[in-house]
Amino acid sequence: MSQGLLILYTGHGKGKTTAAFGMAYRAMGRGWPVAVVQFIKGKWMTGERMFSEHLPLLELHVMGEGFTWESEDISRDQRAAERAWETCERLMQEGKHKLLIFDEMTYAMNYGWLDIERVRQSLRQRHPEQTVVITGRNAPEALLADADLVTEMKALKHPFEQGYRAQPGVDF
Amino acid sequence: MSQGLLILYTGHGKGKTTAAFGMAYRAMGRGWPVAVVQFIKGKWMTGERMFSEHLPLLELHVMGEGFTWESEDISRDQRAAERAWETCERLMQEGKHKLLIFDEMTYAMNYGWLDIERVRQSLRQRHPEQTVVITGRNAPEALLADADLVTEMKALKHPFEQGYRAQPGVDF
Repeated sequence: MSQGLLILYTGHGKGKTTAAFGMAYRAMGRGWPVAVVQFIKGKWMTGERMFSEHLPLLELHVMGEGFTWESEDISRDQRAAERAWETCERLMQEGKHKLLIFDEMTYAMNYGWLDIERVRQSLRQRHPEQTVVITGRNAPEALLADADLVTEMKALKHPFEQGYRAQPGVDF
Repeated sequence: MSQGLLILYTGHGKGKTTAAFGMAYRAMGRGWPVAVVQFIKGKWMTGERMFSEHLPLLELHVMGEGFTWESEDISRDQRAAERAWETCERLMQEGKHKLLIFDEMTYAMNYGWLDIERVRQSLRQRHPEQTVVITGRNAPEALLADADLVTEMKALKHPFEQGYRAQPGVDF
């Protein structure tokens, strides 16, 4: 029997969502069904989304409305976050997937849209073999305390600060 | 035209190789051919290897002899690293892949098995649209200077320190 872990990829450096998709890659190699809920990414097409469409083991829920810091309708974003979290809870209750990825979920917690105690409780009640990966900057302290693995992605050099723009295939 | 970047995932935290495979995931979503050279991983089966076998866009070269720090034959490991680097150079000269991943290559540099100036020169001479991702702890300073993106994966909490053992599907 394998032991499900709670994994947080946080910090301001690049590689958080990317590492979560690397986890999906590895898990699918073992034949595990994987589900991903994306809290921020919305309408636009991403490389990870294009690739996921070809993978029968992967279930992708793109539920965001775009970057909140660019948003013109915060209440719309909040509703989107609540819907995304309901999907996360459903996936944990079903217990069908051995790996769940809640991508960029920390923002919804930091904006106060999700109740952290409710999140912690649902995570604790999930199937013991289910590994959950949560990504995003500034993971809340209470979640850090519950996690089995926390990696802070620290930006030593960030390409956008070097004058590069985000590129398809590399950044999304 | 896209701009090839030199990306380093370094530091002692988990997520370096994982993020590199996440890059592969995204790149293949865009239809890019990807090649991976693994410097350490050798005989044993990994989730990323099992998954890669099903992906026509991915070319995987598993060229290691296992963990050097567990090795009984250092000169064998050194030869393996040299052969792995020759493969990297060939892939850069061919210029066929838009994404190259040199996984756990920093160890070979830190052991003095690869000449860092030769590595830097080959990297500089690669096709300008080719993105190269190098992973491993303690990336050499000279390489940090050349890189466009450096993320340090910092272990805030490491499952092996919490008493968990490495698990298939999660750790490899």
